[in-house]
Order: sequence, then C-alpha cells, then structure tokens
Amino acid sequence: MIIVLKPSTTNEQLMNFTSMLKDKYNVKVNKWDGVQSTVLGLIGDTTSIDIEYIDAQDIVESVKRVQEPYKKANRKFHPDNSVIKITDTVSIGDGSLNIMAGPCSVESEEQIVAVAKAVKKSGATILRGGAFKPRTSPYAFQGLKAEGLELLKIARQETGLPIVTEIMSASHIELFEDVDIIQVGARNMQNFELLKELGKTNKPILLKRGLCATIEEWLMSAEYIMAGGNDNVILCERGIRTYENFTRNTLDIAAVPIVKRLSHLPIVVDPSHASGKSWLVEPLAMSAVACGADGLIIEVHNDPAHALSDGAQSLTPEQFDGVSKKIFALKNAMDNQV
Amino acid sequence: MIIVLKPSTTNEQLMNFTSMLKDKYNVKVNKWDGVQSTVLGLIGDTTSIDIEYIDAQDIVESVKRVQEPYKKANRKFHPDNSVIKITDTVSIGDGSLNIMAGPCSVESEEQIVAVAKAVKKSGATILRGGAFKPRTSPYAFQGLKAEGLELLKIARQETGLPIVTEIMSASHIELFEDVDIIQVGARNMQNFELLKELGKTNKPILLKRGLCATIEEWLMSAEYIMAGGNDNVILCERGIRTYENFTRNTLDIAAVPIVKRLSHLPIVVDPSHASGKSWLVEPLAMSAVACGADGLIIEVHNDPAHALSDGAQSLTPEQFDGVSKKIFALKNAMDNQV
Amino acid sequence: MIIVLKPSTTNEQLMNFTSMLKDKYNVKVNKWDGVQSTVLGLIGDTTSIDIEYIDAQDIVESVKRVQEPYKKANRKFHPDNSVIKITDTVSIGDGSLNIMAGPCSVESEEQIVAVAKAVKKSGATILRGGAFKPRTSPYAFQGLKAEGLELLKIARQETGLPIVTEIMSASHIELFEDVDIIQVGARNMQNFELLKELGKTNKPILLKRGLCATIEEWLMSAEYIMAGGNDNVILCERGIRTYENFTRNTLDIAAVPIVKRLSHLPIVVDPSHASGKSWLVEPLAMSAVACGADGLIIEVHNDPAHALSDGAQSLTPEQFDGVSKKIFALKNAMDNQV
Amino acid sequence: MIIVLKPSTTNEQLMNFTSMLKDKYNVKVNKWDGVQSTVLGLIGDTTSIDIEYIDAQDIVESVKRVQEPYKKANRKFHPDNSVIKITDTVSIGDGSLNIMAGPCSVESEEQIVAVAKAVKKSGATILRGGAFKPRTSPYAFQGLKAEGLELLKIARQETGLPIVTEIMSASHIELFEDVDIIQVGARNMQNFELLKELGKTNKPILLKRGLCATIEEWLMSAEYIMAGGNDNVILCERGIRTYENFTRNTLDIAAVPIVKRLSHLPIVVDPSHASGKSWLVEPLAMSAVACGADGLIIEVHNDPAHALSDGAQSLTPEQFDGVSKKIFALKNAMDNQV
Repeated sequence: MIIVLKPSTTNEQLMNFTSMLKDKYNVKVNKWDGVQSTVLGLIGDTTSIDIEYIDAQDIVESVKRVQEPYKKANRKFHPDNSVIKITDTVSIGDGSLNIMAGPCSVESEEQIVAVAKAVKKSGATILRGGAFKPRTSPYAFQGLKAEGLELLKIARQETGLPIVTEIMSASHIELFEDVDIIQVGARNMQNFELLKELGKTNKPILLKRGLCATIEEWLMSAEYIMAGGNDNVILCERGIRTYENFTRNTLDIAAVPIVKRLSHLPIVVDPSHASGKSWLVEPLAMSAVACGADGLIIEVHNDPAHALSDGAQSLTPEQFDGVSKKIFALKNAMDNQV
Repeated sequence: MIIVLKPSTTNEQLMNFTSMLKDKYNVKVNKWDGVQSTVLGLIGDTTSIDIEYIDAQDIVESVKRVQEPYKKANRKFHPDNSVIKITDTVSIGDGSLNIMAGPCSVESEEQIVAVAKAVKKSGATILRGGAFKPRTSPYAFQGLKAEGLELLKIARQETGLPIVTEIMSASHIELFEDVDIIQVGARNMQNFELLKELGKTNKPILLKRGLCATIEEWLMSAEYIMAGGNDNVILCERGIRTYENFTRNTLDIAAVPIVKRLSHLPIVVDPSHASGKSWLVEPLAMSAVACGADGLIIEVHNDPAHALSDGAQSLTPEQFDGVSKKIFALKNAMDNQV
Repeated sequence: MIIVLKPSTTNEQLMNFTSMLKDKYNVKVNKWDGVQSTVLGLIGDTTSIDIEYIDAQDIVESVKRVQEPYKKANRKFHPDNSVIKITDTVSIGDGSLNIMAGPCSVESEEQIVAVAKAVKKSGATILRGGAFKPRTSPYAFQGLKAEGLELLKIARQETGLPIVTEIMSASHIELFEDVDIIQVGARNMQNFELLKELGKTNKPILLKRGLCATIEEWLMSAEYIMAGGNDNVILCERGIRTYENFTRNTLDIAAVPIVKRLSHLPIVVDPSHASGKSWLVEPLAMSAVACGADGLIIEVHNDPAHALSDGAQSLTPEQFDGVSKKIFALKNAMDNQV
Repeated sequence: MIIVLKPSTTNEQLMNFTSMLKDKYNVKVNKWDGVQSTVLGLIGDTTSIDIEYIDAQDIVESVKRVQEPYKKANRKFHPDNSVIKITDTVSIGDGSLNIMAGPCSVESEEQIVAVAKAVKKSGATILRGGAFKPRTSPYAFQGLKAEGLELLKIARQETGLPIVTEIMSASHIELFEDVDIIQVGARNMQNFELLKELGKTNKPILLKRGLCATIEEWLMSAEYIMAGGNDNVILCERGIRTYENFTRNTLDIAAVPIVKRLSHLPIVVDPSHASGKSWLVEPLAMSAVACGADGLIIEVHNDPAHALSDGAQSLTPEQFDGVSKKIFALKNAMDNQV
C-alpha cells in the first residue's frame, strides 16, 4: 500500500501516523520525500487495512493498493483452477463446457419437465429455472416460490439434470437445502447478510455480477462467501449497466479472461440477460466460449411468447438446439485445433 | 401503452394478439397502419401489464409506456406533497429543512453522545449513525450491530433527537422496532424481500437510491414498500456510479426536482457519500437546498481521522457547525427573498 | 413516429399541430384517444423529421421513432452486405477475415518496415500505423505527421500491404490522398465537419466508435459520410467508456452482431484499444471472430517497451504470430465446422 | 510518480530501467522493496513523462501519478482566480455572475435581435446563439453558418451584448475574428487540432466538457489551448452521459467546486443542455449558483415550439425573466448573508 501525504504534513504528524501504522497493522513503513509530497510505502500483509480509514487521515492526499484486497479468491495464493463438483458427472471449471438452460420462471410441472427434457437432449448439463423472482414492479409475477422449487426437483428426477435456482433472502436457505446450485442474483450481489449465510453452507453458489459492480467488488463478494468457509463459488458475468440502451445490459466479455487471471474460480456467461434479445444469445454465447468461459446459462422456454417473465430473451427448444450444436462444435474446435 | 408490431405480422397473429390483450388486461386496443409497421395503442389501466411479456411476443418490435408503472408513489394520483411525521416536532416534507447528522458508524457511547449533542447544537434535527454496516470487504469493521442500536437510543435519550440507522436484513426488523427512521442502503434498494417486510411496518423508511438505479426503478422500490401498506417513504439521493472517478459517486442533483415532479414523496440528499470527500460536502449541500431538497444527511465525526469507516467524507463538529450555518442562511434566504 | 400529447392539449392546439405536421412533412397523421392522453401516429417518410423539434412543442409529452433515423447505412434498404474493396486482393466484408496490424505510432523507417514485414508474414493483410496522433496531453508525442505518412508508404512498397492511418483534421485530407484507408478516431467520431469532407472523397473510411457513442449515433456518423456520396465505410468497435476501470475501455462485443443486423456495413474490432492490456488482445480477438467480425485491428510493435505511445497494449511480432495463428485457426473452424 | 514493478523483475532489468528514467526525464529515483513487489518513486518534474510509456514496460505492474498532468491550468502554480475580460464591463471569474442567454440556433435577424433585447432586459450580460450547429443527423438543420454570425453581430450592435457562438472547424477561425467568446462544443473537446489553433489566438474560449470526459481530461484540453499561449479559457459543465435516461445528460454539479479547487479558471454551467427539459433549467441553475459557478448559459427562444433545434430545453423570454430574477436574488443572498 502506497500513501501520498499532503505537502502541509508536519514532522510530528508524520511520526504519529507512522507509529500508528506500525502498531495497528504490524507493517513496516518506508518513506521517501518527493518535490511536492512525501510518500509512504507499507510492507507486510495489508489486506486487512481499511483503505478508507487511511484515506480519511487529515494528512493523506491519496492511497493506492499494490496487493489485491481479496485473498481466498486470489489466484496468487491458489494458482490452480478451482473445480466445483456439482454431481458425480458434472463439474464446473475442469475444462469442460457446461450449459445451464431452462426457463426464466418455473410455471408448471408440465412446462419445466418438458423444457428439462428438451434442453438435456440438446446437451445442457444443468437445469435452470426461477422459483423466487426478483421483479422491479411489486405488481409483476413474483414466481411460484416454494412450489416452484418442488417442480424443479420433479424435473430433476425426470431427467437427472442438477438444478440451479435463485435465492432472494437468507431466511429461505432451508428451502434450498436440496438444490444443487444456489444462485445469487445481480441485485443481491452485495446483500452481505445473504452472502454470509451462504458462506456457512457447503452448496455451490452461482454468484452473478451486480449491475454496476466492478470486477474487484464482485471478487470481494465471492470472498465474503469463501471467508465463511464455502469455497464453492462460480462467478457469472451477465452484463453491466452502461449508457448504451439498445441492449438491456452490456456484456463485459473481457471479464472472462480477467477473472481467469485474477482468480482461480470458474466463470460462466449469461448471454440472455446480458442482451435481453433472443437473437443475440447465439453470437454472445459463441464469444464467451471463444475466450474461455467455463459455461453458459441460457434461457429456454417452450413458449416464449407466453412466458410469465423475460420472454423477450428466451429461445425456443428448437432454437436452443441449433445454438447448442454450434456452441459445442466451437468448443470442440477450440479444444482440438485452435 | 404503445406497441409497434413487426412488418411480418400476419392478420391472424394480429387478431389473436389483440384478443389476448383485451381478455387478459381488460383494455381497449386501437390500431393504425403505418408504412412499414402496424401500431397498437392500449387504452385503460396498463400499470399491471408486464412490459417484458409484451416485448417477448414474436410479432412485437418494440413497446413504449405512456403511463408511469408506479401508482402509489405517483404525484398524478396524489397531487399534494406527502409529509412524513417523525416526532411531534420533526416532520419531513412540510417545507422545512431537516438535517440528519452523525457518524458513519456508532463506535462508543461517548462518541455517539458527544456527536449527537454537537450536531443538535448546530441545528441538526435527526441523529444518524450506522450500527449494521454494509462493507465491501468481509475483513472490514462490520459495525457494533445490536449494541450500536442501543447506543443510538442512549444518544436519543440524552438529546431528544430521533434516530435513523440502516437495516441490512429482514430478519433484523424486530431489533429496529424502536428506531425512528429505518434506512435502506443503496446496495439493498432492490432487495425486494426486505422492501416487502418493511412495507408491513408503519415505520418511516429512508430509501437510498441504488448505485446505478434509474429514477423510475427507485420509485418502483418505494412502490414496493407502499404496496405493502407503508406510505412513510423518504427518498435519498446519494450519488450514482459513472465513469468519473475523481469523486466516489456522481451526485445526480437533477434527481431532486425530478422526484418532486414525478412523486409526492419527500427527498433528501446525502452529499457525504455522493462525493466521498469532506471538502465537497458544503457546496453539494448548498446545491441541494437551492433546488428544493427537503433535507440533508451529513456525516459528522468527532475524530474523523480515527473513524472506523468512511472518515474521508466526515466533517468535524466544528466544520459541521460552519456548514450548517450556511445551509440555514441559504434556506432562510430561499424562503424569504428568492 | 409516435407522438404522445399532454392531457392539457386543447382541440385547437391539436388541429393546428396536425395541420403543421401534414404540411411541413407530407405525412399522414392518425390519432387515438387514451385514458390520460391522446396519441398521434405519423405515416410516411419520417427520416427528415427533427425529433427534437417535435419534442419541443408545448403540447407534446414524448415522441418515439418507429423507423431508424439512418437510411443509407440501414440494412432495411440495402439487404446485402457491403464489400469494401481496398486493393485487388484485399476486400473487407466479403466473408474473409482481415487483420490490420502495426504500431500505434510510426517512429522510423526501420521500425515500420520491420513491423510491416513481420505482420505480413503472420497473416496480416493491412498495415496500420499512426502518423498524426491524438494525445490527451499537449506535452506528449504527437506523431511524425506528414513524415510518418511517407514512412508508411515506404513500408507499403516494401511489403505490398495497403495502409490505414488516422486523420485528425479536414485540412489534412490532401496529405491522405495516397493512403488506402483513412481512419477517423473515436474522439473525432462526431467531428461533423471532418465527416462531411470525407464524404466528398471516395476513400475507404475506418470509422471508430466514439468513447460514449450509442450504436445509433455511430451509424448516424457513417450516414454523414455516406450522405456526402462516399459509401466506403468500415465500422470499428474499440470499446466504450464505463464505470469499470480495470480495462481502459469496455469492449461492447454485442456491437458486432447488432451492427450486422441494423446495417450492411462491415465491422472490425480493435481489441488493443478496447482493453489497453496486451494479455487481453488474444481472448478479445477470439471473441470478435466467434461472433462474426469482418476483421481485427491489432497493435504490434517490435519493441513495445520503447514504443512512443500506447505500448502497454502492443504485442511483439512473436506474440502477434501466436495470436494470429489462433485467430485464423478459429476462423477456419468457424467457416468449416461450426 | 510511483511505479510498482512486477515480482518477476530481475536486478538487471531494474538497473536498466532506473538509468533510463534518470537519463530521459532528469528525475531522481527512489526504490523500496515490499513483500511482493518493488516500488519506485520518481522525484522531479514528471509532467512531461508519458504515463502510458511507463505502463508499457514489461517489468511494470502499475503506475500512479502524484502530480496532476496539467500545469498552466493548475491552481497549484497559479493560486489566484483567473479573470477573463470579455468587454470593458463584462468579466468572467471576478466574483460576479454572468448569464449567457439566447437561442440554440440563430434563425433570423428579427428573432435574434428580439431575443437579445429580451434577455438583456432580464439581466443577461452575454448573448449566445448558434450559427454553426453540430447535429447528430446529416439531414437536420445545420445552422445559418456565416450568415448567422453576421446576424449575431447585428444583435450585438443593437444591444451592446458581447456574443458567444460555437466553432466547428479550425478552418473557420477567420470567420470568428470578431466574435467575443468562441465556444468549443462537447463533441469537439478533444478535437486537438482545433484546440491547438485556438491556442494561437487570444480570444476567450468557452470550453464545454465532453460527453464522457473526466475532469482531468477536460483540464488537459484547457491545457492544450493554454500551451499554445492563450490563457483565456472558461470551462463549461454541461452534463455527462450516464445510464440514467430521464434527462438527456446528468449534470455533474460537483464539477463546479472541483474545478475551482484544481484550477484557477472560471467555470459556468449549462442547465439547458444538461437536462434537455425546460422545467429543469431553474432548479439546476439555482444549484449551480449555490455552489459557486461563475456564470450560466441558458437557452432562450422567443418561440420555442418553432425553434429549429433543441426547443425542448428552451425557455420563453417570459420564463427566462422569472428564472433570472430568482437567480440574481439567490446570488445576492449568497453574497450578502450566506
């Protein structure tokens, strides 16, 4: 950590500040004098230093971290890729490509079983479906809730596909005990109380990136879960909010190779929410595979025009089959020739 | 609601779609034929129509709302300003200017009582202080929690100032029973489960704008609380995330007059979090008062350099006294001469 | 075009407004009455209607375009892909993949010839190099200017590669007469006087997307050039400015398939400027190819650490050779198997 | 300037790099060794060091400036406010409040003279009006150009008000010889060739902030003009582009006090373009005055509904008179009581 002091800093202030740093954080402090300002460099483990606290000091002009503020999620301290085992045959992060597919909302047994069978046939290895739905409007359909979870389990039984579904409150964790992957939605990425509770479980967590979260903040949210003892975190890039409004969000495709470099955690991409348009799902999915994503999460609905939520971005099972063929052909080419 | 259909729409599709709209939503449907496309106009109460559902239809090119999607928060249906009564002598939205002041985090009885006395003397009418603290890092100080709430109550007893403090989980609501205003932080603005629970109380809620929430989304979050039966919502503009990183956030000052026009709810401004720099608190507070804010929420700490969180943006009691004098002089001038 | 009127509109105002629309723009006007507002629909060619003029009318609440505001760049009126011929053997938009490669700045004959030879050997078909350099600081190296153009031509002679280089002022057009592709930089995307002058030439123009331009604004800038009579426009996505600052810009990969759908113009991707980091060039280039880009523009420098500008994002010729092999392998797989 | 080196840096690389820094930039280099990385601190005048060049070095992990990259615009080297003299009676930056008012576009002698007389009567001290108009669409009205400049001069003669109008190309500078203040529009803020040419004149320049320019980039553009010898730069905050689309842009009100702190140059605010809505002009103007702006630039049109551009944000002369009264009352209160 590097600290630039204000030109007005007195010698006494400097000495008091330096002593405090040494005592409080057990770091060594180096100092050099520039033309306009004095600079301090802290040597030691600075992860636990609150950068805002330092920045608050009267005599401090600015602070810069040299080390990343996350440890457990950091590739520096865990060079090998993490592999998150979902079932005996499905793992994420092992070099394979997993597609999670299914409807935005679970609507009925008939619907979810039909979609599950269809997406399995097309190569999906995990079934997605929303039971608890975060909706901007209190007047919009909020999901089938507990009943939706039961329907997902029926679809799992019928197809053998593990299931991933979103949690919206720590008070629901018991309900999710039998879910294979618990999803944390973008709007809850910094719901720290929820993250802490999930850290106490040993469930795989699919952590979506917040609508305007930096990559560092996102990794810090993974760190929350891991700090609680649960290392089974899968990151999901799903588009960020920018000024461009042709698409619902802007897919930050660079997040895939960046996360791979900074962290050992696997990362999947959600082209459906990133774009909000079904005709963009294929090209964005292809891009994600080409730059190394560990998986995709794609909305598939057997009747998008009557979907109770987010239909605009859903594929039909037939469309998904076509997209899936292309995705796996690309993955195959990437593995063998590229 | 106006719906533009794709040029490829067949007559049969059009008729099926129109019937569905009439049956499902009890609206009238007008149609006209353009050169390239057919346009439908829905007449009636369209608030409950899920715009994404419409957008999902195969034959739909785009949709546009004419009416706002919020009702209870909408000034159109409630022309008079809402006045939120906090105590017998303190109300927000009645034309007066209320300053909520206090430390980012409650740290000790001594600290919070001292700050409370100081800010009261300088004109603050409400004491703020964080007990549960949302922090980006799991390794940072997370607040004194329940103990912090108790210390706030002691400070209230000592000064008579009502207290506002942040809630982070619906499971804590009971702990907040004796708090005067419950704050929902920016990161929880779309924690819908929390909003629903707060809607069941009758507590005044200070609803901070999310880091990248549109004004409409923010008003929809207010609508969540109001839809549950709690009309006591105070909005708080605290800066949004933009590409500019000189300040921590970018204060969207226009949100004040916009909210005043779209909604009857009162709005206060948080210049401390919007800027992240103590020297910007005064000019931003002045701006907020000049364009009609109902109040301000300002961080004051008796020892900012040793604050356990967010010290960089805190004022000392002496600085706050100076800022406060200017703010009230401006408010006085606005009321009498401008 | 759809116009929503304010509830307060009188009958007389409505009639005057309607007459004006018919007379001034030669359109038909349809009207229907909603619950809260009256809506007008204009039928005919609305491209020349100034939407801001309509929006300015006292009685207008909001306006929405149904047709896109661009004509010549619009795929609706030109369904086939445009192919921009650069030389007898190099065309962009014909299904092939062209890589433009070279240094950010031309520095010397030795440098540019060496890089040109190297990138040609690795498969590049066009040589890029900056002679006039837009720099944020007046104190930074501004390029070799006219001399740089001469050096580029020498490199062209030595290798046969056509050259692309950036223009910064309409007053330099004569100097660029012998350049194969004239580049308009992101900061000049809305330098309309420059666009107009380039519209009078018949040179291929590489039009970079502005730092915060919407896709529609970008296509409107292409329209400026085309409206002047020059249809040889190649679009270049180079990242947009967002709140995320790990990368210099955020590559909006979705722009590739979106531009392909909205327009017939070819589109290339600049992974070097989009990321600002050389290690991100490969994964972003792969993503671009996987979603259908017509080409890439990549910075290659024979000595990045001594580059006079933008070295951080440059590849060495050796690195470029490796990236290029992967890119062409992917393109080959896309064409044959995927 | 502080440079963090990669852990992999060898001793030889370090020595070579250090020598280069000393030789090339005439700075002293301090070094200290952290746990994971070595850090260098450069002492001396680092303004001319190209930060991207440093960042490009193989051994460099990251770089941080301690000094601002602008000199002539920097308050550190010029503590007193700059006062830009426009006429014998009008100066900007001297503590007075100047309102520049007038139509977006000059349309006719009758119009511009009428508006000029009206705004003068209401207290405006400078007449604004567009002759060359930057428009997104090539099919939209582009201004009366040279003829518009002549009409502005007539209005000046009739009222005595100095005039400010926008330049769009360096090739037009001669035409602007008799203009009092030359405006550089947001889209040309980084048209460096234009800035350089304006630096050779001695005209007051109104430099609008780019749509997504940081405050530092904006000050660097001022530096371009000043580096050429022209110190008469007035900055104009006119809103930035964000995700929020209720307003056309987001007024970054904090830019006023920030510019005041970083620079000695005066700053004015454009509430008309910042919001795009006439009803927001008053509250935003009040905010700007309350936090210390040196002036305002406001669109006034005698017939906004028939304005040839940007009518939606224009005030009528009557509305302007009301707004102006409030603005001056506030300014008076600020000077005397607040």
